[in-house]
Amino acid sequence: MLTSECSLNSITVRGADFNDVVRLARSHGFGGVSLWRDLLDGVDLATAAGKIAAAGLCVTSVCRGGMFPQPDDAARRARRDDNRLAVDQAHALEAECLVLVCGPMGADPAGARRQIRDGIADLIPYARQAGVKLAIEPFHPMMAASRSAVTSLSEANDLIDALADPILGIALDAYHVWWDVNVEHQIERAGPRLFSVQIGDWLTPVTSELGARGMPGEGCIDLSAFIATARRAGYRGLVEVEVLSDRWSAQPADVAADAAVAGIAAV
Amino acid sequence: MLTSECSLNSITVRGADFNDVVRLARSHGFGGVSLWRDLLDGVDLATAAGKIAAAGLCVTSVCRGGMFPQPDDAARRARRDDNRLAVDQAHALEAECLVLVCGPMGADPAGARRQIRDGIADLIPYARQAGVKLAIEPFHPMMAASRSAVTSLSEANDLIDALADPILGIALDAYHVWWDVNVEHQIERAGPRLFSVQIGDWLTPVTSELGARGMPGEGCIDLSAFIATARRAGYRGLVEVEVLSDRWSAQPADVAADAAVAGIAAV
Repeated sequence: MLTSECSLNSITVRGADFNDVVRLARSHGFGGVSLWRDLLDGVDLATAAGKIAAAGLCVTSVCRGGMFPQPDDAARRARRDDNRLAVDQAHALEAECLVLVCGPMGADPAGARRQIRDGIADLIPYARQAGVKLAIEPFHPMMAASRSAVTSLSEANDLIDALADPILGIALDAYHVWWDVNVEHQIERAGPRLFSVQIGDWLTPVTSELGARGMPGEGCIDLSAFIATARRAGYRGLVEVEVLSDRWSAQPADVAADAAVAGIAAV
Repeated sequence: MLTSECSLNSITVRGADFNDVVRLARSHGFGGVSLWRDLLDGVDLATAAGKIAAAGLCVTSVCRGGMFPQPDDAARRARRDDNRLAVDQAHALEAECLVLVCGPMGADPAGARRQIRDGIADLIPYARQAGVKLAIEPFHPMMAASRSAVTSLSEANDLIDALADPILGIALDAYHVWWDVNVEHQIERAGPRLFSVQIGDWLTPVTSELGARGMPGEGCIDLSAFIATARRAGYRGLVEVEVLSDRWSAQPADVAADAAVAGIAAV
């Protein structure tokens, strides 16, 4: 794969600030960036959008909204406000989508799933008005207790069927779904709903829940086949390289970016 | 739940040898034991079976056979020999089943799944002759790369449908399947195929692939509901407490057994 077909996710070069991420993406030949919201604290979004455009980059996604299950109405209102702010940020940056990390199962999985569906339904009109697409990210079951009750692409597809709005689609990360016996079929089913495709590699044994990923090619996922399946399903966008890695984070951001480029070349 | 309705899995009191496990199970009021095979090295099985019977215990399972995907014919033959030895051990101990940990996905998931199906089919006649039931254990997707390409109860049920032999059933561990949106339905589907039901709790964040489990009640799984579902599906056997925990393993085996009993009481 060419680096220009890829987008640099800011977490892959953790430690880099907004300006660093844009500089690294440009210098390394990426076609775009994906931005975690912590990077946007204190950044003027109009200025940021200008810098990104001047660097010839697009914004493939903003990460993240979601976390819909909340213990009470006050917490749900606060979360709704934050999700609307995330939509505004994605709009200001002309991001191709806002990624939704839907929120954990908690003690009541069925209730959590209901709050997720209701929360997305509530956010859709606001996102539509802003022209921001919402991308549900199915998460690896390893993170069901901490991040997302949506643990498979099949569930994300079902949720989108149920809510039936073209503004709603999927952020598909190979790291989260590669193990699933139904993943190829579900990628075909997702088709034009694929708003974002992300790669990172699976290293075993797992040493931490959030920081154990590998650069493309370091692990066991057949990323070439994965991307080919997404392309066959109709995905035309950039492929995000999103690698949460304690190991790579301990390196300078330039070194991590070099490694991402080397990994992409091997896919 | 009563401790007498439960079986003490030897890994829950890691560090204990065969005699210790039997002593701890008896002194703590368990109805049975489940034995990992490393515990049987150098143990005369007829003598062992006598000690277990004298303690008033049954053997709910022997752990484990499986690991069917292998790189070449020689490795597959060696694995077949080892699996037959595991059947012999389960027979000698009058275990209710031999647990099958089917083996990892590797670089070729479809090939691994084929080898798993063929390997089980090859083992069935030998197990039938020995009167040993084989229990496929679906594993958490976190271990797809290292332990098992069978990552859901649904897949295990499908595999049993395909092989269609009453000697073949399921070892169902809450830790591996709790996150699955379809788990209740699939437990009902499994019904009389449930040869073993195991519990351990999910702690987050995950700090290691194999040793991050909690005693019942320490984590987020609704184990009461899980066991109730298995009972409704017809499971009448003892519930194994199988907790692979680096934290509890650092404690004396007696302390871990006490904690298991306290956890059971809370379910």
